[in-house]
Amino acid sequence: MLTNKQIKLINSLHSKKGRKENDLFLVEGEKSLLELIKSDFIVEFFVLNEVEVALNDQISLTTNAPVYLLDTESIQKLSTLVNNQIGLAVVQQKQFSPFKINDCYTIVLDGIRDPGNLGTIIRICDWYGFKQLVLSEDCTEFYNPKVISATMGSFSRIEFTYVDLGSFFKEHSDIKTIGAVLNGENIHHYQFPEKGFIILGNESNGIRKELLENLDERITIPSFGSAESLNVGISTAIIIDNLKRFLLL
Amino acid sequence: MLTNKQIKLINSLHSKKGRKENDLFLVEGEKSLLELIKSDFIVEFFVLNEVEVALNDQISLTTNAPVYLLDTESIQKLSTLVNNQIGLAVVQQKQFSPFKINDCYTIVLDGIRDPGNLGTIIRICDWYGFKQLVLSEDCTEFYNPKVISATMGSFSRIEFTYVDLGSFFKEHSDIKTIGAVLNGENIHHYQFPEKGFIILGNESNGIRKELLENLDERITIPSFGSAESLNVGISTAIIIDNLKRFLLL
Repeated sequence: MLTNKQIKLINSLHSKKGRKENDLFLVEGEKSLLELIKSDFIVEFFVLNEVEVALNDQISLTTNAPVYLLDTESIQKLSTLVNNQIGLAVVQQKQFSPFKINDCYTIVLDGIRDPGNLGTIIRICDWYGFKQLVLSEDCTEFYNPKVISATMGSFSRIEFTYVDLGSFFKEHSDIKTIGAVLNGENIHHYQFPEKGFIILGNESNGIRKELLENLDERITIPSFGSAESLNVGISTAIIIDNLKRFLLL
Repeated sequence: MLTNKQIKLINSLHSKKGRKENDLFLVEGEKSLLELIKSDFIVEFFVLNEVEVALNDQISLTTNAPVYLLDTESIQKLSTLVNNQIGLAVVQQKQFSPFKINDCYTIVLDGIRDPGNLGTIIRICDWYGFKQLVLSEDCTEFYNPKVISATMGSFSRIEFTYVDLGSFFKEHSDIKTIGAVLNGENIHHYQFPEKGFIILGNESNGIRKELLENLDERITIPSFGSAESLNVGISTAIIIDNLKRFLLL
């Protein structure tokens, strides 16, 4: 049976403070749980709906972590999601030390604040085969439950690091910085260099001034209509798709 | 002063039933209001925060509709948005009769249920210069406040019609139906025909079976990683970007 201490722990993981203090985070809902058990994340324990027999079997077969069964109402009460009648897991956070850049291209996020946007971008990176994500220190927290949920399981396949972007770009000055802006080169004609950092900026303000001034290259998604901007998740997807297409030509 | 009847009317427009009965809808928040006054939508009245003097002036100068001023708390209370301290407008719905297809390419949505997704797709259409959107009858309602808000003002520039897609495609059998599926032709290599309907399907189930079986062409966004799918808004953006690039080559 789930102890009061464990219930308290789960509730503490609803907040950033609790996640930081415990070095744990929540994985919620069926899709995310199924991806979780395929990954090498270390799970402290699962809390599943007692009626989800098949899922319970599948999880019990692939993990040694304790599984607690509860009724629908209790699951929903413990969850951060508006609608979660399936279950959740309490999982150890991974800490990636400032990592080696392994690939020719890496996505870099500057000041992304909306958890849904970050989650969407993680999912897009995973779709296009990127393994690493570099985030400015003021980006929203990777382990925020809204981020995890929006990744649709892709959180388990992307390494990430939070850095001071100014210093980071200095350390990697052999790699070109390519920023998404509103008045750059049309990505349909842009000749991507051999290696690069693709930088996407904050939802309202774009890439911060200090970085903007030092960009090596500026790229833009061509507009044919009247909308003033695109959502940053949408922009990331279109730019990565253009990059992948270019690299494979 | 705003009458009780008007307050009741605004509250009724929070629901689909109320919007249908009154043939009205709500436009909320600064960005949407600014786009609204540039459009030819007919506004019944505005309700603005009394502290927003500049916005109030701007709106009063461009419209003959009554403007009522309220305090922040009252605005928030009338709004459907989690955070709206700016104001709202009560606006007449436009009814577009089943329209003539004016452009070579038209975006068609089959069973899109999430208002955020529909709003995002409307914004993307507007960015890429599409003027018309065709929706299956079970798509979410265009005038849902969450849709309007997610369009970031683009709602004012897109005509739409809800149709039975089976009959619609029969009527327009000279135009190829091109569906976004998971096992179609790679859009990076796909030769788009001269004219076409680009069809995006439901968030969970994709394009419905009856339509799927009768598609002329099937296209797919190439995957290079492990994510099982992309969000439908993201997919729409990537496909339209590839289409535009192809047509301009």
